[in-house]
Amino acid sequence: MVHIYNQGMDYVQESIAAIVSIHPHIKQIKDLPAIYNSQASDQQIPILSGGGSGHEPAHFGYVGEGMLTTAISGPLFAPPKAADILEVIRFINRGRGVFVIVKNFEADLREFGQAIHTARAQGIPIKYVVSHDDISVETSNFQIRHRGVAGTILLHKILGEAARRGASLEELEQIGLSVSTSVATLGVATKPATLPWNQQPMFELPEGQISFGIGIHGEPGYRTVPFESSEVLANELINKLKMKLKWHDGDPFILLINNLGGSSTLEEQVFTNDVLEFLALDELKIVFTKTGHLITSLDMEGLSITLCRLQDKVWLDYLQAPTNAFAW
Amino acid sequence: MVHIYNQGMDYVQESIAAIVSIHPHIKQIKDLPAIYNSQASDQQIPILSGGGSGHEPAHFGYVGEGMLTTAISGPLFAPPKAADILEVIRFINRGRGVFVIVKNFEADLREFGQAIHTARAQGIPIKYVVSHDDISVETSNFQIRHRGVAGTILLHKILGEAARRGASLEELEQIGLSVSTSVATLGVATKPATLPWNQQPMFELPEGQISFGIGIHGEPGYRTVPFESSEVLANELINKLKMKLKWHDGDPFILLINNLGGSSTLEEQVFTNDVLEFLALDELKIVFTKTGHLITSLDMEGLSITLCRLQDKVWLDYLQAPTNAFAW
Repeated sequence: MVHIYNQGMDYVQESIAAIVSIHPHIKQIKDLPAIYNSQASDQQIPILSGGGSGHEPAHFGYVGEGMLTTAISGPLFAPPKAADILEVIRFINRGRGVFVIVKNFEADLREFGQAIHTARAQGIPIKYVVSHDDISVETSNFQIRHRGVAGTILLHKILGEAARRGASLEELEQIGLSVSTSVATLGVATKPATLPWNQQPMFELPEGQISFGIGIHGEPGYRTVPFESSEVLANELINKLKMKLKWHDGDPFILLINNLGGSSTLEEQVFTNDVLEFLALDELKIVFTKTGHLITSLDMEGLSITLCRLQDKVWLDYLQAPTNAFAW
Repeated sequence: MVHIYNQGMDYVQESIAAIVSIHPHIKQIKDLPAIYNSQASDQQIPILSGGGSGHEPAHFGYVGEGMLTTAISGPLFAPPKAADILEVIRFINRGRGVFVIVKNFEADLREFGQAIHTARAQGIPIKYVVSHDDISVETSNFQIRHRGVAGTILLHKILGEAARRGASLEELEQIGLSVSTSVATLGVATKPATLPWNQQPMFELPEGQISFGIGIHGEPGYRTVPFESSEVLANELINKLKMKLKWHDGDPFILLINNLGGSSTLEEQVFTNDVLEFLALDELKIVFTKTGHLITSLDMEGLSITLCRLQDKVWLDYLQAPTNAFAW
């Protein structure tokens, strides 16, 4: 198997060049691996997110009016450098500070944390939220953390629209905490991602097996089982999500079905149907649904379910507000 | 490798159930494998398209305001039955007739042709256009035809918006002919699609090789060569498209980069960048670009380039008009 890349070239810079060429509202920040919405109002608090590449369309696809003001990308599955993040913060700050959305990975927290620390020392007000929606790893071991995965884009959209409507840094922090503690995601893989440079699978998956709780950086899942059917899979994942989110009849929820990269759109639709049927059995009120390639892991085949309890009705307005971010 | 389906179940009906549940403007037509935009005005000519399943988000994803009024799906890679197509035509007709978009495959033409013939005999005015954008098979043999592939969605959008603005059947036919003869598509695969029921690859592709001119129904390409790089690939495809479309400096074109299913979005962006660079070298004026999963072949990894000469500036208005079709 081969993949369509250029050897020795900088795929982050190549993707930025394509995006900037296609979308007039997006510009690159200097020669950094970062883009911004050049049409964003100077009156709003800028929202910054980012992380490793390999998750396309995240995070660049979420830069636009009422979503991210700016996004920065690192190399494949590795965060951007603190010095680059700091430069983006300084570039995008209009005097009111910057709000940052970070995914809960050790390396991401280190680089973003260091940039935030330095920016604050330089007098730039910063608030942030850590996205930790993946409930697949049990926190029995303190080194095993709830990672930030597909649910992160709910933070992008809700906080992005709140900022566009004039929310302060403190208000964004409150909304961010409220959303990030209301979201849970579970994912499975049917085929591991392959690394572009050596074309090797990132983990082993025996024939006919499916892996539960995979990460988006090639981390293997916590359990490998024979695949039975989309229906059985949906049932098992919904049961686990229910244990975490403890819902009752009629509770309003937001639903995301994320294609992790290489699954067919037909699989995505079949699985979405099974998920919706189980949620309907429980009489959950699904107020907003989004499906597709949201946060991927290169060409890994697999799907994830994200559920977010609608704690505040205004979140729905924020989700439904139009945006020109190309991946929303 | 496994795929997330339910054995023995009807994936077309499952996908319709998911789509109808998520999108309030879409309803199923009776118990047919067909959906329609229930908010479409009775004053416009309804636009119908369809074909085999396995190409998701086509065709259901293009049903919405200013795009398809209705779409019908057949089983995997096989067209819907003429009797079902006829029933959809009769259901959607508001007395002014129906405009039909068909992809140029023998079986599709047979089923749609028979339905059109019967509908006309029953007094329903029908005009249609055949989409034949794939230039990968040479027409030296009269049985080998230019197939309808990703360029078909340009017909959906341009004709859909023209119909919404009040175009007559005759005007739609004129626009359809003009668009369909201005489009050319070329695609490559890096991994064949796998059939859901037996998990077998639909053709053989030796390690490290790429297949030129593959079809979207598992048809193997006309030539298999070692893969070199995204840049070399973009150059070769652009040269072939140029021979066909015979452009000059400054000519305005519409560009689609289609992900055929399982390629990573990062590959899509890297390849798009290479394509845009070669088109810029030729000083083509790219007035509209769309990338993503447009018309797929299950989980086949591969990408295609579609170029359409902008013969009429109003096409650009039609393409830029908003739509609630979920895959546009």
